[in-house]
Amino acid sequence: MDSERAFSFRLFATDGAARLGEITTAHGVIRTPAFMPVGTQAAIKGVHLSDVRAGGADVVLANTYHLMLRPGAERIAKLGGLHAFMNWPHPILTDSGGFQVMSLAELRKLDQNGVTFRSHIDGAMVALTPERAIEVQNLLGSDIVMQLDECLKLPAAAEEIARAMRLSIGWAERCKRAFEGAAPGRALYGIVQGGDDAQLRLESARALTDVGFPGYAIGGLAVGEPQHVMLKMVEEVAPALPAERPRYLMGVGTPEDLLLSVARGMDMFDCVMPTRDGRHGRAFTRFGPVNLRNARHAEDPRPLDAESTCEAARIHSRAYLHHLIRADEMLGAMLLSEINLAYYQHLMAGMRTAIGEGRFADFGAATREAWERGDIPAL
Amino acid sequence: MDSERAFSFRLFATDGAARLGEITTAHGVIRTPAFMPVGTQAAIKGVHLSDVRAGGADVVLANTYHLMLRPGAERIAKLGGLHAFMNWPHPILTDSGGFQVMSLAELRKLDQNGVTFRSHIDGAMVALTPERAIEVQNLLGSDIVMQLDECLKLPAAAEEIARAMRLSIGWAERCKRAFEGAAPGRALYGIVQGGDDAQLRLESARALTDVGFPGYAIGGLAVGEPQHVMLKMVEEVAPALPAERPRYLMGVGTPEDLLLSVARGMDMFDCVMPTRDGRHGRAFTRFGPVNLRNARHAEDPRPLDAESTCEAARIHSRAYLHHLIRADEMLGAMLLSEINLAYYQHLMAGMRTAIGEGRFADFGAATREAWERGDIPAL
Repeated sequence: MDSERAFSFRLFATDGAARLGEITTAHGVIRTPAFMPVGTQAAIKGVHLSDVRAGGADVVLANTYHLMLRPGAERIAKLGGLHAFMNWPHPILTDSGGFQVMSLAELRKLDQNGVTFRSHIDGAMVALTPERAIEVQNLLGSDIVMQLDECLKLPAAAEEIARAMRLSIGWAERCKRAFEGAAPGRALYGIVQGGDDAQLRLESARALTDVGFPGYAIGGLAVGEPQHVMLKMVEEVAPALPAERPRYLMGVGTPEDLLLSVARGMDMFDCVMPTRDGRHGRAFTRFGPVNLRNARHAEDPRPLDAESTCEAARIHSRAYLHHLIRADEMLGAMLLSEINLAYYQHLMAGMRTAIGEGRFADFGAATREAWERGDIPAL
Repeated sequence: MDSERAFSFRLFATDGAARLGEITTAHGVIRTPAFMPVGTQAAIKGVHLSDVRAGGADVVLANTYHLMLRPGAERIAKLGGLHAFMNWPHPILTDSGGFQVMSLAELRKLDQNGVTFRSHIDGAMVALTPERAIEVQNLLGSDIVMQLDECLKLPAAAEEIARAMRLSIGWAERCKRAFEGAAPGRALYGIVQGGDDAQLRLESARALTDVGFPGYAIGGLAVGEPQHVMLKMVEEVAPALPAERPRYLMGVGTPEDLLLSVARGMDMFDCVMPTRDGRHGRAFTRFGPVNLRNARHAEDPRPLDAESTCEAARIHSRAYLHHLIRADEMLGAMLLSEINLAYYQHLMAGMRTAIGEGRFADFGAATREAWERGDIPAL
């Protein structure tokens, strides 16, 4: 870690609303648009971190909720912080824990001060306030820290969305105060809320911009709403955020979601889809999604994609991958997770190059056309 | 594959009863004494085959029973054989399927001709005869092929042991006939049976030697009997087998079992223990077994073994491994399986070097002493 290196964002090029840039952190550089593999419990499921890196990842995400409960943030701090703990010397972003408290914890009680919940691991009662969310992320030592927010499932009533959004603004200010004095190579992002209501989203974006953050996220999307609603919100909010700050669309998404959101000015993404779907036999490829569980692959000696940047997609036959998935062999989940992460990174790299060369629209059209053509014909 | 290369065994040195040698097959060389990682369903659980190789394995074992049921031997043959299917261009040994029929299949019916059983996967009735066991292994294309035998659980009645042993001799002859005409780089091993009865074991060894095989296995051990019984059987049988042929002790064992069996003249071993125990948090090390699930490791920043040949044992803290196992993260199973396979190979390499230098007894004593001293003290 270079503790002298200050957090910064440089914008190299734009192409329409799409942006090519670079975030510098104490632990290195993140090329944007960036996809962040999700390492919930300080590990990417089924993939060695060396292979995550080799696949092209500049940054991984880890979940504050899970890590504060097990092994505990204080313990990780004692062990030298999250980078040392998980042997990932590159940038790490941690969420605030809020999203998982809403989706995983039982008996949660939320008020102005924060949220109290019962741990899903040992049943202990745990309090998470804006200040504690920052303290935990400081203990973890992540490069990019997220404010605590209240994230609703959609659909939700308008007044409920407004209440949660305004509560989250207050928490954003408290998080900013709590984060004061952090090392210059680290940064706190504010999170735009407001559900599927564009006016509330814009109110949130303005209020957060007034507070002032080195980066902004759009949260509370990809939580059950149709894709066009998500894209509409991104389209409204992105231009309302400062151009000179990175923009992170949380929890998104499919390869198509990424393409369409970059086209609308977003810079950072995270999603469990490449690893979770990989464990279930679904591969993401330039031919679109391919279900390796399908019997059509059972005797197919061809690789998943002979031109993939990922060796696993080139050297193993579809028949072997099919067998591993059908036989529930760990190696099947491992190979497909790695293949999917590499495809996501390949897609991001393609977008970055295209933006830099001013041909993002063509790149997007060609990529979607290839997805729509679908997989190579069965033998 | 070099189809010109004939199967052969060269003995380089002996030290007491311990033997240093080399088996040549169509797919390369196996340094003996050799430990064979078990790839039941054409995959080593939790470990990339490239890491299995990097850990020092010359040969892997695959299970005929599992592969004939799924994906099917004919299908694997159509896909170019097992080496191509699993992307392992090095030697492969396959068992005959007999052991798993006895332990996994339901409704089995055994007679002189063979065994009929219900598949544990789809309930289909399947027949396995000595001829079919060879046909299946020929379809798989394994380098070392095992005869079909009847393997009993111990303890068993003497007359039952004798019956099964004599049945297996008959099957050995039938397997040998069925294997005639196989490529010269491949070999069929006969399997000594006879339970825990030394006289029956010697009768079996003599009869098999009369039939004549390029390699001999001792089967039906490590099936519930005490270690001293297993070692006694090995001690009786090994000297009764031709010195110029490799000797394979099936399904064995712990690191100590390996050391004591090499000392008694055995050359080849296989066991699921390194990967199965690894999945459950148990590491094999030069300090003896270490249970990473144990709370004493929770805040221990030290690696499992700073001097390990395996990077995973050197770069990750015990605290991280402990966390991964406690959190049931796939990566925990992956890392410990890899660490354990590497330790097993390190142990075999140490034995080979020691035999070559005529100091096997000293090596064994020092190794066991280190195991008995146990793990490094807690912090």
